[in-house]
Amino acid sequence: MADVYDVIVIGAGPTGENVAQRAVRGGLTAAIIESELAGGECSYWACMPSKALLRPVAAVSEANHVKGTAGARLEVPGVFDRRDEFAHHWKDDKQVEWLKNAGVDFFRGAGRISGERAVKVADTELRARQAVVVAVGTRAVVPSALAGAKPWTSREATSAHEVPDSLAIIGGGVVGCEMAAAWSALGARVTLLPRGRLLDRLPRFAGDLVAKGLADSGVDVRIGVGVTGATRNGSVTLTLDDGTTLEAAEILAATGRAPRTDDIGLESVGLTPGSWLEVDDTMRVTAVEGGWLYASGDVNHLALLTHMGKYQGRICGDAIAARAKGNEPEVRDRSSKTCIPQVIFTLPEVSAVGLTKEQAEAAGHTVRVVEYEIGDVAGAALFADGYTGHAQMIVDEDTKTILGMTLAGPGVGEMIHAATIAVAGQVPLDSLWHAVPSYPTMSELWLRLLETYGL
Amino acid sequence: MADVYDVIVIGAGPTGENVAQRAVRGGLTAAIIESELAGGECSYWACMPSKALLRPVAAVSEANHVKGTAGARLEVPGVFDRRDEFAHHWKDDKQVEWLKNAGVDFFRGAGRISGERAVKVADTELRARQAVVVAVGTRAVVPSALAGAKPWTSREATSAHEVPDSLAIIGGGVVGCEMAAAWSALGARVTLLPRGRLLDRLPRFAGDLVAKGLADSGVDVRIGVGVTGATRNGSVTLTLDDGTTLEAAEILAATGRAPRTDDIGLESVGLTPGSWLEVDDTMRVTAVEGGWLYASGDVNHLALLTHMGKYQGRICGDAIAARAKGNEPEVRDRSSKTCIPQVIFTLPEVSAVGLTKEQAEAAGHTVRVVEYEIGDVAGAALFADGYTGHAQMIVDEDTKTILGMTLAGPGVGEMIHAATIAVAGQVPLDSLWHAVPSYPTMSELWLRLLETYGL
Repeated sequence: MADVYDVIVIGAGPTGENVAQRAVRGGLTAAIIESELAGGECSYWACMPSKALLRPVAAVSEANHVKGTAGARLEVPGVFDRRDEFAHHWKDDKQVEWLKNAGVDFFRGAGRISGERAVKVADTELRARQAVVVAVGTRAVVPSALAGAKPWTSREATSAHEVPDSLAIIGGGVVGCEMAAAWSALGARVTLLPRGRLLDRLPRFAGDLVAKGLADSGVDVRIGVGVTGATRNGSVTLTLDDGTTLEAAEILAATGRAPRTDDIGLESVGLTPGSWLEVDDTMRVTAVEGGWLYASGDVNHLALLTHMGKYQGRICGDAIAARAKGNEPEVRDRSSKTCIPQVIFTLPEVSAVGLTKEQAEAAGHTVRVVEYEIGDVAGAALFADGYTGHAQMIVDEDTKTILGMTLAGPGVGEMIHAATIAVAGQVPLDSLWHAVPSYPTMSELWLRLLETYGL
Repeated sequence: MADVYDVIVIGAGPTGENVAQRAVRGGLTAAIIESELAGGECSYWACMPSKALLRPVAAVSEANHVKGTAGARLEVPGVFDRRDEFAHHWKDDKQVEWLKNAGVDFFRGAGRISGERAVKVADTELRARQAVVVAVGTRAVVPSALAGAKPWTSREATSAHEVPDSLAIIGGGVVGCEMAAAWSALGARVTLLPRGRLLDRLPRFAGDLVAKGLADSGVDVRIGVGVTGATRNGSVTLTLDDGTTLEAAEILAATGRAPRTDDIGLESVGLTPGSWLEVDDTMRVTAVEGGWLYASGDVNHLALLTHMGKYQGRICGDAIAARAKGNEPEVRDRSSKTCIPQVIFTLPEVSAVGLTKEQAEAAGHTVRVVEYEIGDVAGAALFADGYTGHAQMIVDEDTKTILGMTLAGPGVGEMIHAATIAVAGQVPLDSLWHAVPSYPTMSELWLRLLETYGL
């Protein structure tokens, strides 16, 4: 006899947890299956440990950039202790308890779809009255040229307990840049090897400012240098495509993510193992008949970010609950394509939301780009001596609303939510003009951007 | 022969500068008159020097509240140097130059209205074709019980170059709280004597958290203790209304502000010297016939904050320029009564915008209050170990929009502009739900507030 639930969620990361919680809130029963730790990648090997490592680095840097302070320094063992606490020492007791309290049944093991509305976890068969939700996330892709040298992935980079003498990082995306900042500050000699410019999905100035910040803190940033081979013999020797070699005590492959869908039984319902799962705006997998299969979070490839996974999870759980009552869901995904916010916790920080100029033009918008040096805002000068930062605002000239914003500079992480509200709320520039920023905060940037626009 | 300008502005603080700049941008000629330093109170004896003092204090405190850092401390001479630089060593050459470049004629001296559209500054007579704008701001009020002991006001508290052994601060508003935080950190033994609770225009929790923060940093906060007399004999002896006395090396009167309108010739146009000047939503003084007299900034008593003065200055300058062309101004003040943001740079910080529950109810709104402990947000826990803070959101239940928000906690200063946009833009909660906050920032507070509301 199979255990029957309204909803079966495969993957107990933040996304799956949100799906289950919202389904239960909607009156349904839910089971959740996790092959590793409840809480998922984000809690143990991504957001939480990386930001726990990076926050002391930022706090020290910020103090040391204000005249009138002295002596701030990192204490590496304390940084690791702090990180270990935020990663709950890689134990998920609390998270399992939270699921229990949320009314969600927890199954530990590898969940595999075994047919329509059917999932097996070890010897247990589960059946879903309403829906099965795939929320298994992604794993790091290790290029074949590196695999033999057993590189760190984001997992080791966020959980290691010793500082390597030297670290070569392959890849200039978010993981590469953040981990370069962290491990350099912790004392490793870091070489960053991005294939192209840093943070290449964002406007160029963001990656340029991060490259400068990393270089200033001692990272050897070698833009455009590729890696053709790696051999480990104690340390690792990388063969580079500029004809040189590079020795490093450790290497980190930060070269992208792949969906963890290769062994979850997709073939039993006619889908391709290892593929991303395309969804509609309620997270329902479009390629499966009957509307019972959903995919939420990284695995649908819309936006590989914890907060977007959680957002989709809320939509997904609510949609399943609505459909269980015979209603079509009222709230659908509005943000996963056009209003994705992101904060990159480098020095300087980068934050962005919405469309870039190129994306906006490709979508047919008539665009005006407004630029401003954040250091010219009084609040920024107060925040850090010699503040360097840049802001770019993308305006839709037809609707006079903001389509996107990118900020790079110290302390810009908490500033992006204002832009996220402006984008999501489609607040006209004429109304933003009456949203007066407090003097002297960095948020006065908003006034300067609107003045630069001509208001 | 009088010099003739389209607009004559009395007072070259940030407000007056904005009036003149916008008038010139609108095609008018403008003169500005300043009896002290161009740049005004804010630049030399308020926002800038106070925040220059407080930023190092915050940076050190923030570093010392993150495990994995060590050693951060203040260097008092460096703090003073920094403050002096931000106050431009109390010289206004740069600001005068800025006015010149902005096309505004600068007159140094006391400006006095001498009749309709007429202003005298020393022996020079100026006449205005369009408008005279009073932007003279406020000064500190010193209670008679303290006057004989020559207390510091906000001016000395922001510009002093020596740390008194002990400092008694009378008044628990923004100036009192911020200066208690600053001078305590700089090494003075500070006693804070607020008549009522701290920051009493804000929800109670804000002042309570600031009181705790001040007490934790060594300030003796004596809520509800009044001062009945003060005598100086080297140090100052305060007589308190609880029957005790208090010795302090210095005392600071932080007991309110009065308009600097006592000697600007108001009597020549039938107004009362020393009074606040009531204005309409274009900053036109309502009590004067002919519509030629405007009052912008502190002096109209709408919102005694630099950024609100600047906002009013923009509206005022634009309105004068529009009327000069025979048009009624399109953009009118929408924010000075219902959408005033404020950041208080204490430890913890406080930030607020819009209406409190009491104000919203008094204005006839059906209100729901949503509360959340900011320390329960992952981003806040990452920001500071043991983060303590509180958020309150005021929702209009009829329109389902946000009327106000108050935040208290470390680092909340840059977070309030998101709420300011939500309030000014009247963004419905249903849209805010799609403004996804980045994980793990403190801005995830928005998600928690909306969840707590029930979305």
